[in-house]
Amino acid sequence: MATKETDYIFELPIKVRDYEIDVEGIVNNANYLHYLELTRHEFCEQAGLSFARMHEMGLAPVVRHADIEYINSLRIGESMVSKLALCRKGARFIFQQDIYRADGLPILKATITCVCVEGGRLTRGDALAEAFKEYL
Amino acid sequence: MATKETDYIFELPIKVRDYEIDVEGIVNNANYLHYLELTRHEFCEQAGLSFARMHEMGLAPVVRHADIEYINSLRIGESMVSKLALCRKGARFIFQQDIYRADGLPILKATITCVCVEGGRLTRGDALAEAFKEYL
Amino acid sequence: MATKETDYIFELPIKVRDYEIDVEGIVNNANYLHYLELTRHEFCEQAGLSFARMHEMGLAPVVRHADIEYINSLRIGESMVSKLALCRKGARFIFQQDIYRADGLPILKATITCVCVEGGRLTRGDALAEAFKEYL
Amino acid sequence: MATKETDYIFELPIKVRDYEIDVEGIVNNANYLHYLELTRHEFCEQAGLSFARMHEMGLAPVVRHADIEYINSLRIGESMVSKLALCRKGARFIFQQDIYRADGLPILKATITCVCVEGGRLTRGDALAEAFKEYL
Repeated sequence: MATKETDYIFELPIKVRDYEIDVEGIVNNANYLHYLELTRHEFCEQAGLSFARMHEMGLAPVVRHADIEYINSLRIGESMVSKLALCRKGARFIFQQDIYRADGLPILKATITCVCVEGGRLTRGDALAEAFKEYL
Repeated sequence: MATKETDYIFELPIKVRDYEIDVEGIVNNANYLHYLELTRHEFCEQAGLSFARMHEMGLAPVVRHADIEYINSLRIGESMVSKLALCRKGARFIFQQDIYRADGLPILKATITCVCVEGGRLTRGDALAEAFKEYL
Repeated sequence: MATKETDYIFELPIKVRDYEIDVEGIVNNANYLHYLELTRHEFCEQAGLSFARMHEMGLAPVVRHADIEYINSLRIGESMVSKLALCRKGARFIFQQDIYRADGLPILKATITCVCVEGGRLTRGDALAEAFKEYL
Repeated sequence: MATKETDYIFELPIKVRDYEIDVEGIVNNANYLHYLELTRHEFCEQAGLSFARMHEMGLAPVVRHADIEYINSLRIGESMVSKLALCRKGARFIFQQDIYRADGLPILKATITCVCVEGGRLTRGDALAEAFKEYL
């Protein structure tokens, strides 16, 4: 069966930090959410609209839904590549985010849905769409 | 439309800690995974099989899948009640975990699927099933 | 040799959360800073000036110095009592913060020096001193 | 007055991650302990004795004392250089660890004292001293 490869538009190498490891010797499940957020924010910065800049503009991207499949565990001393694809559905920005160990072993597949809030109100996300236009 | 209430078997009151709040004044999305883990582990302890005890026995419950709907945000100084329901499907233990603000506002609905690993190998989860038998 | 007991003015019981444990099976050194901050903030709230309220008022208590002696380690499943004493020296609020395991074993002794910033400027800390007056 | 420059033996550039920022817009005080640990562990790895390797050997470096002066705050989007010097006094390894913002502004000066535990017992630290011999 042929599988269509995801068209990733951004990749970030990340090294596991020892304090992210739990007593079982593996990265704690919550820390992957940090890796995913870090990847999205680095992508936004590269796209020209950093999280700091959004904060100044009064824009707050907010996670509305996360679907995360944990496939293999990362261990102490290991490195990963965190990859990202993006599509927009109305006000929702849907990030396909997959993490691979440095040697290619799949670690995690996630779909993260974000919306953009401005002054406490949901926006159509046009400021983000403008920043991301070459990727959408 | 009638909605069947989830039959929660465990509830844990948790107060937001100020360091869990991010620059937007809301709890960072990754911290909810901590709240959910805390709730499962406190439930396990109440059921008579603490995480510490599992670790001594060489058992490691591992999260395989997380589906999280973020409905509303918790803010600085707020408190929540974290509620849990449980069912077993073969080797998988499926936790329905919902978080409500102290006043009842729904904050988050999650489905967390765990398996039990022993010496690196997937188990049928009989040790957990035995501990949880009055809840399954 | 007689030792003068510290005159604690606030005590907070805290249970170790499993995700705070590292691969060595002990609480990671950084997490104690979280316990100490939690204790100070709960004390402030009891004194009538919560951190949330300070934030609304534009006041930000900032840690300027921390001296921490790690005596024994807390392990998975353990509980602690976090105790606090307070004195003021000019603009500085000096918290003596000691943590004991539930059975009384000393875990950590810390001296945390805070100042209060308002609109980016160091203040004399009068708003805090007013809130803490019955303890100073 | 002439100030002797610290003879740093290791430097690590680190970028602030947005989730390390608190509601005041600055890095939370506990996260600096993470930066300092990360720096020590990266130094150990460069010296040829990674934390993962120590764990396999049954060696656990443990923080016994931390003295931390917080000078300036790091903000969202900022980068730092974390610098390290090392000396040994008997069983104690004393790390002088200073953090500077990318433009040179001093952020934090810390002295972290570690010992090495093996099978729960304090060691003389000879395994670490051997690994660090060209730096001591």
